[in-house]
Amino acid sequence: MTRTQERLDSFFSPRSIAVVGASATPGKIGAIPVTYQLDYGFEGELYPINPGRDQILGRKAYPTLSAVGKPIDLAIFAIPAAAVEASLDDAIAAGVKNIVMFSAGFAETGAEGRAAQQRLLAKANAAGIRMIGPNCLGFMNIARNVYATFSPVVFSGRAKSGTIGIVSQSGAFGAYAYAMARERGLGLSVWVTTGNEADIHVADCIAWMARDAQTKVIMAYIEGCQDGERLKEALALAREAGKPVVVVKVGRTTLGAAAAASHTASLAGDDAVFDTLFKQYGAWRARTIEDFFNIAYALSVSGVPEKGKLGLLTVSGGVGVLMADDAADCGLDVAPMPQAAQDWLLAQVPFAAPRNPVDITGQVTSQLDLIETTARVMLRDGDYGSLLIFLAAAGLSEQMQTLQKDVAKTLTAEFPGRTVMFSTLFSHEHQRALDACGCASFQEPSGAIRVLAALEFFRLQRQMQMQKVKAEDIAPVMAETQPRVTIPSGTRNEADSLALLREYGVPGVPIRVARNGGEAAEAARTLGFPVVMKILSADITHKSDIGGVALNLHDEAAVRAAYDRVMTRAGEAAPSARLDGVLLAPMVRGGVECILGVQRDPVMGPVVMFGMGGVNVELLSDVSFRIAPVSLDEAREMIKEVKLSPLLQGYRGAAPADIDALAQAIVGLSDLAIAAGDTLESIDVNPFVVLPAGQGGTALDAVVIGREQ
Amino acid sequence: MTRTQERLDSFFSPRSIAVVGASATPGKIGAIPVTYQLDYGFEGELYPINPGRDQILGRKAYPTLSAVGKPIDLAIFAIPAAAVEASLDDAIAAGVKNIVMFSAGFAETGAEGRAAQQRLLAKANAAGIRMIGPNCLGFMNIARNVYATFSPVVFSGRAKSGTIGIVSQSGAFGAYAYAMARERGLGLSVWVTTGNEADIHVADCIAWMARDAQTKVIMAYIEGCQDGERLKEALALAREAGKPVVVVKVGRTTLGAAAAASHTASLAGDDAVFDTLFKQYGAWRARTIEDFFNIAYALSVSGVPEKGKLGLLTVSGGVGVLMADDAADCGLDVAPMPQAAQDWLLAQVPFAAPRNPVDITGQVTSQLDLIETTARVMLRDGDYGSLLIFLAAAGLSEQMQTLQKDVAKTLTAEFPGRTVMFSTLFSHEHQRALDACGCASFQEPSGAIRVLAALEFFRLQRQMQMQKVKAEDIAPVMAETQPRVTIPSGTRNEADSLALLREYGVPGVPIRVARNGGEAAEAARTLGFPVVMKILSADITHKSDIGGVALNLHDEAAVRAAYDRVMTRAGEAAPSARLDGVLLAPMVRGGVECILGVQRDPVMGPVVMFGMGGVNVELLSDVSFRIAPVSLDEAREMIKEVKLSPLLQGYRGAAPADIDALAQAIVGLSDLAIAAGDTLESIDVNPFVVLPAGQGGTALDAVVIGREQ
Repeated sequence: MTRTQERLDSFFSPRSIAVVGASATPGKIGAIPVTYQLDYGFEGELYPINPGRDQILGRKAYPTLSAVGKPIDLAIFAIPAAAVEASLDDAIAAGVKNIVMFSAGFAETGAEGRAAQQRLLAKANAAGIRMIGPNCLGFMNIARNVYATFSPVVFSGRAKSGTIGIVSQSGAFGAYAYAMARERGLGLSVWVTTGNEADIHVADCIAWMARDAQTKVIMAYIEGCQDGERLKEALALAREAGKPVVVVKVGRTTLGAAAAASHTASLAGDDAVFDTLFKQYGAWRARTIEDFFNIAYALSVSGVPEKGKLGLLTVSGGVGVLMADDAADCGLDVAPMPQAAQDWLLAQVPFAAPRNPVDITGQVTSQLDLIETTARVMLRDGDYGSLLIFLAAAGLSEQMQTLQKDVAKTLTAEFPGRTVMFSTLFSHEHQRALDACGCASFQEPSGAIRVLAALEFFRLQRQMQMQKVKAEDIAPVMAETQPRVTIPSGTRNEADSLALLREYGVPGVPIRVARNGGEAAEAARTLGFPVVMKILSADITHKSDIGGVALNLHDEAAVRAAYDRVMTRAGEAAPSARLDGVLLAPMVRGGVECILGVQRDPVMGPVVMFGMGGVNVELLSDVSFRIAPVSLDEAREMIKEVKLSPLLQGYRGAAPADIDALAQAIVGLSDLAIAAGDTLESIDVNPFVVLPAGQGGTALDAVVIGREQ
Repeated sequence: MTRTQERLDSFFSPRSIAVVGASATPGKIGAIPVTYQLDYGFEGELYPINPGRDQILGRKAYPTLSAVGKPIDLAIFAIPAAAVEASLDDAIAAGVKNIVMFSAGFAETGAEGRAAQQRLLAKANAAGIRMIGPNCLGFMNIARNVYATFSPVVFSGRAKSGTIGIVSQSGAFGAYAYAMARERGLGLSVWVTTGNEADIHVADCIAWMARDAQTKVIMAYIEGCQDGERLKEALALAREAGKPVVVVKVGRTTLGAAAAASHTASLAGDDAVFDTLFKQYGAWRARTIEDFFNIAYALSVSGVPEKGKLGLLTVSGGVGVLMADDAADCGLDVAPMPQAAQDWLLAQVPFAAPRNPVDITGQVTSQLDLIETTARVMLRDGDYGSLLIFLAAAGLSEQMQTLQKDVAKTLTAEFPGRTVMFSTLFSHEHQRALDACGCASFQEPSGAIRVLAALEFFRLQRQMQMQKVKAEDIAPVMAETQPRVTIPSGTRNEADSLALLREYGVPGVPIRVARNGGEAAEAARTLGFPVVMKILSADITHKSDIGGVALNLHDEAAVRAAYDRVMTRAGEAAPSARLDGVLLAPMVRGGVECILGVQRDPVMGPVVMFGMGGVNVELLSDVSFRIAPVSLDEAREMIKEVKLSPLLQGYRGAAPADIDALAQAIVGLSDLAIAAGDTLESIDVNPFVVLPAGQGGTALDAVVIGREQ
């Protein structure tokens, strides 16, 4: 248990609450939390703070926090920004543990507000006070009837108590999510809005919920992230606790916007970094708000299935095909039924489609028990971990509602650990009844398939987590365990870059540096002909564009002539560039060209990239990413993820390439990035040539850039 | 007006209906349509047909159709398959115009049933009787209270009358769609299920609805298509009538499964043909059932906007970003507000985001009129064709509901032809109230954005349609207007293929055929050195794989030696291949390699493909398609659609390629395909080299395959 988690217990489950700026005027920011605590059964002490009143809403009011004279776990600041500093002093004097600060007018208003917020934080930190906000809607601990919020959303109805924890950076979105959860009948444990995140971040709330006994499913809405390590740690804690995290992350990462000239930076644009973060740390990134709620709903109703494979049972062949196509698009395994089970079904329903999707056809209208018997055969003989049953409009008839509930009860009892889901039209009441039987239901099947894709993701995460624990292989390849290296600011030249990479296990072509024609000829002799010659300068990025490259030099004379030509051209094309001579290397023939890279993300740290080489890599964006450290298994996944990956596997009769060596090189790049830490800006290895299996691979060119300090 | 449309008027709006197999037993197939007509106010004549009864449900029953002795517009066959033939004879004798045939047991059961269905159809056709089904749920004309269906779905509630027409091949899906429409408050005009489609197809229903005054929006659910021309014609009719068609098409096209060895066949897999069909003929293919209903709903409530550009108004900055990202992904134009309007807004709301998305922040809670004033400024000064207003959970409070309705009324009155849409939580009643004001609303914004993408598509379709009509440029480039050419069965060799393409305006490299070393040397002299030599054989597909290609031959001696080598290798590698000698062509240097192709789809006719060349084209599937005929504008679009298209536009300092010549070549390929009609199986042009702008392009290799007759 970290310090953060321990402290947040008293925050989210306070025994005493003071409302600073308490008011009796309905609708006022200072009135709402007082009303909520009084009306909704908060069982601890409540202290309205208002120097102008003796009583507020029937409760004794105090002029200051200090005047209370008893321990205060939580102070709610429902006051204007200008009054905050004085109240904070008061809170410190009163020994307040935690503050939720509604007050707007801080970092969101610009530099001055940012500075004021920073001062507040420093003062609170020094006094050991934790703080949510400022500029937030506060939080609720639904299970304990704590309503430390001024959002009026609770007035229009309370969400029921349950197992879903919601944390949102945005107050407006938080209120919307609360109302949505309530309208859809989702049970909530805690609800937190973090606002400006001066102290407590979304990540801290995730970490706390990972340990909170009431919370089983975590929903997080994130707009920006200031602290990647905190978020990684929080997601890892939730995964270890077996609690699925569903995330909506809006906005684009800053990496894409970086002015850096590296391939990796331009390719890691958009959301690639957050995509890979969530994938690596076991959180599911929902693409729409609809999916966000659908997935949390299904998780809270039926949990994560223990087995893979998806069975589809339908009363409409066409919708069966639609579901199967959607499932295949999501990478779900729609494996066929065993032959014997197919034969059994055909004996029952002559015109059934018995494979999977299993279509029991219109015959179901005259033979209602087909739904249960077929579903049972699918779960038992087909051994599907999840079963989606499409019943069209059937959920609206009373007879079918009864039947559906029976099917739901029977199957969940007979097949624990499986997920049974319905897609059918239904009333809210009927859906709630199916929920109670442990079966989630959806009006339309495509949404259900997207939910099943998320459940399968969480199942695989749990499986990996269990294997990890089993193998006791949980010593992470963390920065601390690596020897450290410092990359100086600015661009390393090719020779230095290749040498540095070699130290970390990324093989490079043997090279020699030469500063005149004679040295060049001698270097070529040592390397063996034919050779390639390249201008050596940290200031020249596109060497071939300026005539700085000579290929296929077969003898000494050619090398000497090339030296003069290359140096002259480089001097003409880039008169201000510092020329370090030329670099010679043997010509490497054959193999498959790849591109490897690392780009420092200001928040998430070094991001490792892999793609197939060639001039089109940027047009195609056919690349994959992982946040360092990258394990060998992850490196293999990265290689498999790109569309052009078959080129490495012996495409069209070519020899299979040495994928092991390539994966090792990716890990080596990651190791270097971790060792270099914040001193590294980027690495480009382009191309990295992968030779046929068993022959390794080699970097032909590389640029390492140290971060500007 | 085609014959089909004329006849379907009496089908869908019958003045008299006979129910063959009428029954009084509740729930029976023969009872349901009788009950429906009686209960729901059908105003025409109703004749129950049942030889065993005098009366059914209070109506006089007749033993046969002939016994009615009055005109019968529609006979409903609610009888088993075995009884159908006799009843059809009866119907012919009675002069029945149309039959809707519920009876199952025909083509869906196999070869025998297919033959029986074919016999029925022939007989009905000969008598001039039109037929829906067999094996269908029938149809309803909601506007005229015709319920020619045995689906019990209407018992659980009638959908209201409105402007949406639904046609579904599947009965199960049809019933589900009816119930979904009813639950969502969508107004329907007609509802048809087409079942086995012996006579009337989904396409015929679309064509009829295109002309039906009551129908404004057409929803079509398609599982398979037997007649591409009919579907094209129907979609074109709907587009001409300005009626948007929203389609769900399940299942994969057969083209991808074709065993043909051509590039185009392997690349046109999956749904590419239907995707391009719908795009070309102005129908929107919904990817999910949810989108299917959402889009039809919005079309029926607010229609298609008359201007482009999307304005986003939000009370949550994060959701604003989410909407903008989603909109950008859909290709929508989220243009910024004019500077003056931005300044105005910042004067009202200091911390607003004024660009677009426009975030009016939490300030709206204390200043409710901000919604209307900001929306007005956006529509007036921003000139947005569509405006999506995200109000989080606000739609649940009574005060906000009133305000929303006022905003909706005011804005739709002030800005006719614009689309104003809300995303907010709401009750069904409130949503209906907003509908009545001409504003569609959605619980979550991502779904609304997908709807707006469809509306924008329909807007562009209308614009194109209007330009077409204006330019009176509606003479289609149809098969009839082209000279016809017959391609013999089997594979044409390279020389013949290139020659044929040249006739249709696809330039090819100059070639010479040679049958010995001397001829080869002479041909090379004529062409000019250096030349390339390729084995000439219709039986050898991958020439270079077997050593059948010699590049860069600089003199006669090299040509002679190459001739012997190429012929020997080809003879060894493919001893049974018929060798037609070798083909010589000048070496073409530079330019950008593309791949062009045509593949005959058995239903849709010839499909034209374009992609950038190179060995990876199949891994990347970076290709575009159009169904022939392809206009020059469409060819240009095809070129723009592929990801690697920038390679043609002067990528990284290269010279821009001759895109005009490339587009002309695509049109030429399409012209050839149309001229060859059903005699063509496929064309592969690989590579087609596009030279720098002004220099044209040239096919270096081509294979034309005639269809097996």
